[in-house]
Amino acid sequence: MAETADVVVVGGGVIGTAIAWRAAAAGLDVVLVDPARGDAASLVAAGMLAPVSEALFGEGALLRVNLLAVGRFGSFAAELEEVTGHQVGVRREGTMAIAYDPGDYAALIRLTAFRRSAGLDAEELDSRACRQLEGFLTPDVHGGVLFAGDWSVDNRRYAAALRAAAAAAGVRFVRDQVSQVLVHDGRATGVRLADGSGAAAVPLAAGGGTGPDVSAGAVVVAAGCWSGALAGLPDPLRSAVRPVKGQLLRLRHPAGMAPVISHTIRATVRGADVYLVPRADGEVIVGATQEERGPDRTVTAGAVHDLLHDAMSVLPVTSELILAETCAGLRPGTPDNGPIVGGTGVEGLLLATGHYRNGILMSPVTADAMVAYLTGQPPAPEWEPFTPGRFLPELASTESTAEGAR
Amino acid sequence: MAETADVVVVGGGVIGTAIAWRAAAAGLDVVLVDPARGDAASLVAAGMLAPVSEALFGEGALLRVNLLAVGRFGSFAAELEEVTGHQVGVRREGTMAIAYDPGDYAALIRLTAFRRSAGLDAEELDSRACRQLEGFLTPDVHGGVLFAGDWSVDNRRYAAALRAAAAAAGVRFVRDQVSQVLVHDGRATGVRLADGSGAAAVPLAAGGGTGPDVSAGAVVVAAGCWSGALAGLPDPLRSAVRPVKGQLLRLRHPAGMAPVISHTIRATVRGADVYLVPRADGEVIVGATQEERGPDRTVTAGAVHDLLHDAMSVLPVTSELILAETCAGLRPGTPDNGPIVGGTGVEGLLLATGHYRNGILMSPVTADAMVAYLTGQPPAPEWEPFTPGRFLPELASTESTAEGAR
Repeated sequence: MAETADVVVVGGGVIGTAIAWRAAAAGLDVVLVDPARGDAASLVAAGMLAPVSEALFGEGALLRVNLLAVGRFGSFAAELEEVTGHQVGVRREGTMAIAYDPGDYAALIRLTAFRRSAGLDAEELDSRACRQLEGFLTPDVHGGVLFAGDWSVDNRRYAAALRAAAAAAGVRFVRDQVSQVLVHDGRATGVRLADGSGAAAVPLAAGGGTGPDVSAGAVVVAAGCWSGALAGLPDPLRSAVRPVKGQLLRLRHPAGMAPVISHTIRATVRGADVYLVPRADGEVIVGATQEERGPDRTVTAGAVHDLLHDAMSVLPVTSELILAETCAGLRPGTPDNGPIVGGTGVEGLLLATGHYRNGILMSPVTADAMVAYLTGQPPAPEWEPFTPGRFLPELASTESTAEGAR
Repeated sequence: MAETADVVVVGGGVIGTAIAWRAAAAGLDVVLVDPARGDAASLVAAGMLAPVSEALFGEGALLRVNLLAVGRFGSFAAELEEVTGHQVGVRREGTMAIAYDPGDYAALIRLTAFRRSAGLDAEELDSRACRQLEGFLTPDVHGGVLFAGDWSVDNRRYAAALRAAAAAAGVRFVRDQVSQVLVHDGRATGVRLADGSGAAAVPLAAGGGTGPDVSAGAVVVAAGCWSGALAGLPDPLRSAVRPVKGQLLRLRHPAGMAPVISHTIRATVRGADVYLVPRADGEVIVGATQEERGPDRTVTAGAVHDLLHDAMSVLPVTSELILAETCAGLRPGTPDNGPIVGGTGVEGLLLATGHYRNGILMSPVTADAMVAYLTGQPPAPEWEPFTPGRFLPELASTESTAEGAR
C-alpha cells in the first residue's frame, strides 16, 4: 500500500508536473500526488508568456525571473513537443498593449518608459498603426505598444503534454489528496494521503507515530493556493499563500469566420484591464478578474458582463463570437506577488508555489530550480529573492527580501 | 416493428406532450415520437404566463387566445400536479413592467392604455412604488406598471411533469425522428421514422408504396420550428413556420443570499427589452434575444453581454448572482406571430405549432383544442383565427385571417 520514491511531488498543475517530469528525466524516482479534481489554476489560464507587458513598477526582481522564464520557455516547449509528439500551441506574434482613452494611454506610456529603462523591447503605435496590425480593433482606441517578445501558449495543451512527458519519463501518479507532510527529526520523510490507507483517521502525533503513505527522501509542495492547507509545512509558509480568484471566458469563432486577432491584445479600457489571447485552434481567451474571495470558484454575472464589455469596447467583433465556456480558477497569490521557490528550513522539504499570474510562464524555470535543489546544484541567481526564507522569521535576517534585491 | 395507434403525435415539447397526455386521458391510444435531443424550445424558456404584459398593438386576436390560455393554466397545472405528484412551480406574485428612462416610460404608458382598453388589469407605479415592491431595483428606474394577473411557471419542471402525466396515462414514447407524414388517398395514415425500420432508405413514392412505421388514424404535428421539415405536410404550411432564436441565462443565488426579486420583472432599457423571472428554487431566468438566424443555436458573446447589461441596469445586484447556464432555443415563429392550430385540409392531419413566445402558456388550451378536433368536438372560438387554413390558398378565401377577426 505504501509507496517509496526519491521525490514525492504534491500537486499536479503545470508547476508540479513540470518538476516531476524534469526530476524523473534527471534520473530520480518520482511520485506525483494530486486529487485530479480538474481545478488546477493552470487549466483556467490564458497562457500568456508575457514578462514585458506584465512588468510593473517596483517589481524588478520579479521581472528578472520572468525574463529568465521566457528565455527558457522556447527550448523547454520544443523538448516537450519532441518527447511527447504533442503540439502545445506556442504563438509568437507578440502582444499589443492597447489604450482605450487618453488616460489609459498616458498610463501605458509611463509603464512603457519603465519597461524600456529595464532594457525591454517596445514599439509605440498610434491608433492607425494599431489597426494596421489588428484590423478589427475599434477606431476609438487611442494608441498602443507592441511587445514583440511576449508570446502565449495553449495552457491546456501544455498541461496535457507535461503530463504525458512525465508519464513517459516514469513518474508514477497517485490520485489522492495529501493531508500532511510528515517530518521526523527535522527531516521530511514523505506524505500522508487523505484516502490512501485509512491512516488519516489516526490521530496525528507530531513526528508521526504511523508511517507515511508515500515515503520519500524529498517532498516538493507545488499545490498552488492549497499549499497552505498542508499540515507539516512551517506555519509562516502556510499563511503566505492565498487564493486569488480569476474568471475567464473561452470564445470560439462561428463556422466559416476567419480569426479576428492574431496578436495577444492586452487592453486598458478606462482603467480596467482585459486581455484577448488567440489560440491556434480558433479559440480566443478573454480574461481575467482578480478577486479576493477565498476559495470561491463560482462564475458571476458581473464578471462575465465586465469581461465581455471591455473586450467588445476594443474589439467590437467579439460580440459575434460563440461563448463556449465560462470558468474560474484560484491563483496562488503571495504578499509580495512573487513566487515561493526553494527550501523551507526543513531538510528535504521544498516549496514551489505562489506563481500567481505567471505559473505557466515560470513552470520551466521552476522545474529547473527544483531539480537543482534536488540534485545539490545551485539554482539560477534570479531565484534568490524568491526563496521561502523571506517569510520565515528565523531565516529572514540572513536573507535578502524579494524586492531588497532590486 | 411497426406501431399502430389512434393518434401519433410528432414532437415531445410541451405542446406535443400536453396534447398526448390529454388525448390519452380522453381515452385515445397515443404514440408520441420525438428524437429526444433535448432541444425543445420549451426547455429554453422563462415560463412566463403573461398575456397582459405581452399584448401588443394589432394583436387583439392573439390576446384573446392568450387570455383563454391564462384562464385555463391554473386548473390544468393543478391537475398535472395532482396526477404526477410533481410541483411545477407556478408563481402568482405578478409581473412588473419597468421603464428605465422617460422614453421607455412613455412607450409603456401607451401600451398600458391599449391593454386597459382591452379590459386588462394594470396598476401604474412611480419609481418609489416600484422599489417598494422590489427593493433591489435601481433608483434610476423611471416608473412601471404592475400586471397582477401575469404569472410564471418553471418550464423545466412543467415539461417533466407533462411527460410523467403522459406516461401515466398510457402514452407510448418512441425515441426517433419523423421523416415524413404518410398520406394515402387524401388521408393521413401514419408517419415514417428516420431510423425506425430502414424504410427511410426506400425511395418514397407519393402515397407510399411501403407501409408507415407508426400507423394511426390521426397525425398531430407539434414539432415546433421543425414542423416545416416534415415531408407530407402541405407546402404552404411547411414554409409558414420558421425558427426564431432566443438566448437566455439561468442565474443562481450564491449560498446564503436571499432571493433578489419575487415578481417577474419585464424591463425596457432604452428601448431594449429584458426580463428577469424568479423561480421557487432560487433560480432567476434572464432573457431573451429574438434573432432571425435560421437553425443556429450557438450562445454568442454579444447576446450574453446585452442581457446581463440590461438586467444589471435595472437590477444592479444581478452582478452578484452566479451565471449557472447560458442557452439558446428556437421558437416556432409564423408570419403573423400567431399559432397554427387545427386541420390542414388533409383528413386526419392536424397541426399545432407556431406558438412562438407563448408555447408554455398556450400548451393547455392547445391540448384542449386538439382533443376537441380528435373527438369531433368544436374547439373554443378563440382558435378560429389561428387555423392552418389561413396559409392555404385553396382554403383562405373561405376563412377569416388571424387579424381579420379582430
